[in-house]
Amino acid sequence: MRDIKLAAIKKEDSKTIIYVDDVAIGNGFCVIAGPCSVENEKQTIETAIAVKKAGADMLRGGAFKPRTSPYAFQGLGLMGLKILKKAKAETGLPIVTEVIDTRDVPWVSEYADVLQIGARNMQNFSLLKEVGKARKPVLLKRGMNSTIEEWLYCAEYILNEGNPEVILCERGIRTFETYTRNTLDISSVPCLKGLTHLPVIVDPSHASGMANLVPYLSYAAVAAGADGLIVEVHIKPEDAICDKNQTLNTVEFARMMKKIRSLYAFIEENQ
Amino acid sequence: MRDIKLAAIKKEDSKTIIYVDDVAIGNGFCVIAGPCSVENEKQTIETAIAVKKAGADMLRGGAFKPRTSPYAFQGLGLMGLKILKKAKAETGLPIVTEVIDTRDVPWVSEYADVLQIGARNMQNFSLLKEVGKARKPVLLKRGMNSTIEEWLYCAEYILNEGNPEVILCERGIRTFETYTRNTLDISSVPCLKGLTHLPVIVDPSHASGMANLVPYLSYAAVAAGADGLIVEVHIKPEDAICDKNQTLNTVEFARMMKKIRSLYAFIEENQ
Amino acid sequence: MRDIKLAAIKKEDSKTIIYVDDVAIGNGFCVIAGPCSVENEKQTIETAIAVKKAGADMLRGGAFKPRTSPYAFQGLGLMGLKILKKAKAETGLPIVTEVIDTRDVPWVSEYADVLQIGARNMQNFSLLKEVGKARKPVLLKRGMNSTIEEWLYCAEYILNEGNPEVILCERGIRTFETYTRNTLDISSVPCLKGLTHLPVIVDPSHASGMANLVPYLSYAAVAAGADGLIVEVHIKPEDAICDKNQTLNTVEFARMMKKIRSLYAFIEENQ
Amino acid sequence: MRDIKLAAIKKEDSKTIIYVDDVAIGNGFCVIAGPCSVENEKQTIETAIAVKKAGADMLRGGAFKPRTSPYAFQGLGLMGLKILKKAKAETGLPIVTEVIDTRDVPWVSEYADVLQIGARNMQNFSLLKEVGKARKPVLLKRGMNSTIEEWLYCAEYILNEGNPEVILCERGIRTFETYTRNTLDISSVPCLKGLTHLPVIVDPSHASGMANLVPYLSYAAVAAGADGLIVEVHIKPEDAICDKNQTLNTVEFARMMKKIRSLYAFIEENQ
Repeated sequence: MRDIKLAAIKKEDSKTIIYVDDVAIGNGFCVIAGPCSVENEKQTIETAIAVKKAGADMLRGGAFKPRTSPYAFQGLGLMGLKILKKAKAETGLPIVTEVIDTRDVPWVSEYADVLQIGARNMQNFSLLKEVGKARKPVLLKRGMNSTIEEWLYCAEYILNEGNPEVILCERGIRTFETYTRNTLDISSVPCLKGLTHLPVIVDPSHASGMANLVPYLSYAAVAAGADGLIVEVHIKPEDAICDKNQTLNTVEFARMMKKIRSLYAFIEENQ
Repeated sequence: MRDIKLAAIKKEDSKTIIYVDDVAIGNGFCVIAGPCSVENEKQTIETAIAVKKAGADMLRGGAFKPRTSPYAFQGLGLMGLKILKKAKAETGLPIVTEVIDTRDVPWVSEYADVLQIGARNMQNFSLLKEVGKARKPVLLKRGMNSTIEEWLYCAEYILNEGNPEVILCERGIRTFETYTRNTLDISSVPCLKGLTHLPVIVDPSHASGMANLVPYLSYAAVAAGADGLIVEVHIKPEDAICDKNQTLNTVEFARMMKKIRSLYAFIEENQ
Repeated sequence: MRDIKLAAIKKEDSKTIIYVDDVAIGNGFCVIAGPCSVENEKQTIETAIAVKKAGADMLRGGAFKPRTSPYAFQGLGLMGLKILKKAKAETGLPIVTEVIDTRDVPWVSEYADVLQIGARNMQNFSLLKEVGKARKPVLLKRGMNSTIEEWLYCAEYILNEGNPEVILCERGIRTFETYTRNTLDISSVPCLKGLTHLPVIVDPSHASGMANLVPYLSYAAVAAGADGLIVEVHIKPEDAICDKNQTLNTVEFARMMKKIRSLYAFIEENQ
Repeated sequence: MRDIKLAAIKKEDSKTIIYVDDVAIGNGFCVIAGPCSVENEKQTIETAIAVKKAGADMLRGGAFKPRTSPYAFQGLGLMGLKILKKAKAETGLPIVTEVIDTRDVPWVSEYADVLQIGARNMQNFSLLKEVGKARKPVLLKRGMNSTIEEWLYCAEYILNEGNPEVILCERGIRTFETYTRNTLDISSVPCLKGLTHLPVIVDPSHASGMANLVPYLSYAAVAAGADGLIVEVHIKPEDAICDKNQTLNTVEFARMMKKIRSLYAFIEENQ
């Protein structure tokens, strides 16, 4: 990892803490929750209110959806971003949303508090350079076939353009095992803690593809030393347009949040 | 998983608890620790005493070593088993040791309290049938390229021969990521908890190949709901004949054990 | 593969043949050759002359290079495209070159005869839509972790925007095997022949990462039914800025071409 | 590959040729064909006669079947071996059959002309040592998650016991791609040709799991430089107890054999 320079831990380094409004990522445990896609105003705002009440720190929701099939729902685009803005006005939760095109970075940045780079675009170097020029933190998902080294190089692309605020997000890698959607590489969390000063969070929803596994993987993420989670929550998962099998309902999420907060507090005290 | 019958959870099932001397696996959190290989009496007994003191429940140690190269140390064989017997006499710790040949099952069973089937032999069906006829519990490691389904079928092979005492051990799968030795599939723990009544433990040493990751993966295993761990510990890891990079020294192990016990207790109380 | 519509074989289908100047892809065996990167005029034009002489049908060369590290050579950009134009003027070979940003598609199309989408951008859906609107054939490389199904969906994205000219390029997938750079999935060739009417070519250079394997993989591609190859060739591989280990020199390429042409002719006659 | 000694190419090496009755492996192109399992006398002998007529050099057939589920057909055992012996008496074809237990090696050697080690037992080192003591050639299949290096070490285990006759068989590796049963690693053929003097053959049936791909993969194997094939053929594939989807009928096999023989002859002449 010879050329990992800006992302690498140096002697004088303290860990990077990223502030989004009054939320700190990299200091304490940060939970980002919300629906896979922004489907409409009601669904988004009700979910936002519920996750806020359960203790989430930020709201996630996709307005641009990278979908395997061109015939699948591609997201509401600008309308979706406007709905997210309303959800923020309603709840105060900062917005994490994906950007998928270099041309969209400037105007999506007006709606997003954190720009998400999805797994499929992890090595879209043009997009990395563009968000590297933006003045917003970037949540960089690991590509599903990316090594930890390649992933750090992608962070380096963003840092090298002048944007120091990168959050790494482990979301499962693709392996031969098909029982789960992907394989959560929980080891990547302590690995990264030894390699980089950037915060590291975990996405248990895409990693597993199964809602009933999400709490267990979330507890494991806390125990392994992650700085936070990004979790799919929907007021009615069975009606969700995408990812319904991996999405928690608001009751399940609230129950999990309670345990996560107490587990994190226990671990902090006993370190 | 149509043909998973004996291993599958049934309505009337309670979880299987396996008793080895006064140790219970599947009830509470069980830690098996010890060297990769039995190298000599001093190393084995000193390690046994240290892990016992740190709170380990059983002693692991290989007398037959399946090694990639035929020119690598193949284990002490019978002499190794005799050393393990002495270590048990000294500490009271039950012995977990690997068997690699159908012809050895009867006599290795006289020394072992738990017969280990290694990852490379997971689908050695002759060996599975043979340990299925033994009157000792079997620790069945997941093959490094095995699906959860195939692994359960291997448990089924053992159960089907009349041996009801099988412990499943997740030890990492082989993926494209080479930073770690294997990729710990932490999701397999909650998956299996929904599929089988058998106890599930985790091997963080082989999963990571890196001693500094072992504690974090161990905490994650506790949090994900595992029933125990099997960990490589050596009085002097730098002198170990095999697996030195992934082996804890006795001080590191003791420190980790303390945290594991308190973490497990906290989670049990707060469930 | 329910939603593979435009890319799928239908009863009335004949195979798609794509014409680029006087080269036909999907009818006969088409060889695209040239350097990984356009480094300078001399290197590019000399290589072009050599591969033309050896019987190549088109010239490849990267002006925009997606590189793992931001500190690695990123390509000459516009200057590189101008050099490719000169190489075409000199040799008559049509130009295949990669485009990596939606904003570049219109003006790169003025220099390229075929727009290449690289493996890392296979699921850059914005880029797929943009090249779907271009009036140039698209060479779509398989993502290194993409299933055949996902790859066909990416072709479908392009076709669905109105561009019927898509060439699929197998370039190896990422597996646990590290002896070769990637693992050439030779089976994908006959698989695709049963699933789609689009032409399928093979990239033995990236698939293997080893120049000495390139001829054997090329012969295998011919035998498996591929419509062509894309091969890295350099006048002086040892001085190449990228991919030197997998690049043939012009003598090796000429020797291989002779065998490929005779092998293809033999197979055509004996079908 | 520091410790690959006996299997490695040395200056003074000529390629190893293994003689089985009047069949030479490693000199010319050798085709082993027959059913997955020996099911009964009629099926085995009729298949043997058909593959002999089509030009096969040896007969394959399993009497001991390593099956994922303990409830699946486990093979006819001794009765199966006796049927194979009759098939040999009828056709003259030498017999290739799998051995799965160290205890069986001596007596199975009385029926088999070549002892097969299956993919699941590639790293069953006890079994490797035992066949290393046998006086029969060994066909060593690559484990589905084994690197080329590990595979060569397994050959080394056999050679190191004094048996110089090892045939390596590439049969596909396990990857994320599920469209085919496994992924044929065609590159392993030329890789091995540069690393070892042992003959290398290809199993296109297990590699693909799809009968319609078998001919294409077989042609690719010829073109890539393999020394032979092992192919599943059944008089009535739709009635086969195992592997029906990947098994050729005798007409398909005969058609493929004709092309293989002419393709191999062409390549030999034009080298």
